[in-house]
Amino acid sequence: MRTFEDFAVGDMARMGPMRVGRLEALEFARRYDPEPFLLSDDGTKGHPFFQRMAVSGWLVAALVNRLVVEDLRQNPAAILGTPGVDRLRWLRPVHPNDELVVEAEVVAVRRLPRRPGVGLVRQRVRARNQERRPVLAALLSLLIAAPTRPKVVRTVLDE
Amino acid sequence: MRTFEDFAVGDMARMGPMRVGRLEALEFARRYDPEPFLLSDDGTKGHPFFQRMAVSGWLVAALVNRLVVEDLRQNPAAILGTPGVDRLRWLRPVHPNDELVVEAEVVAVRRLPRRPGVGLVRQRVRARNQERRPVLAALLSLLIAAPTRPKVVRTVLDE
Repeated sequence: MRTFEDFAVGDMARMGPMRVGRLEALEFARRYDPEPFLLSDDGTKGHPFFQRMAVSGWLVAALVNRLVVEDLRQNPAAILGTPGVDRLRWLRPVHPNDELVVEAEVVAVRRLPRRPGVGLVRQRVRARNQERRPVLAALLSLLIAAPTRPKVVRTVLDE
Repeated sequence: MRTFEDFAVGDMARMGPMRVGRLEALEFARRYDPEPFLLSDDGTKGHPFFQRMAVSGWLVAALVNRLVVEDLRQNPAAILGTPGVDRLRWLRPVHPNDELVVEAEVVAVRRLPRRPGVGLVRQRVRARNQERRPVLAALLSLLIAAPTRPKVVRTVLDE
């Protein structure tokens, strides 16, 4: 299990590709973002930016989150939660059947003085579509378990 | 239909209450945020903040978004999209069956010089639980249609 000490500024993870399904986009928009331009191609008539049905930005954010969480679980990390996100930007429309890839780079790590045992890892996250154009950017903060005693380091001398 | 001119700094909307269902929380976490402490009460064992299953912050954000969109549609506004969110903060855990109320206050309005016909409305959004404690805060930006010609104003003289 990776803990706070295993994260360092500059660490980079690449995730995806991941396809955004039309049905999933419709279902999500009906529940959480019922705007005409997210519910059908017709709903974009006269819209200045969207020529056809777009995907809710909140679904794009949730899908990016899934990739980040899955990546952290493949290399298990003791995630304790997400206190916040800064500068979340939907840079271009995402459309049904677009394929996204995601990059996450660690840009800051620090212990929380008032919460011993917890560290903050901040990642710059960027999602691109199949044309390699950025569609989402954000600064995502994660709380990671930070043992107060150093972990035992095994070296060849222990074998 | 309300357009950009109908929004002013200080406008306040109150929404909810809205209950966060346990099944919905589970389904969302399985799809988009598969972390042990979001999937069962058992998954919070040893967790420093959560004593029982919590709700994904991304679901809380999506539910808050639904209330904001529904409110704008009750008083129809020509929403064109959401370019971004700043300082999204999950301030306290939300648990299944919590009831949330949301307040949204307009804190900035401006036309976009490079996009005639589009205005930016920025809202400070805050969600509270049934104990009136804040659980989410964010600055949400919305693009709203901003007709370049002033709307015809009907007065008693027109009747």
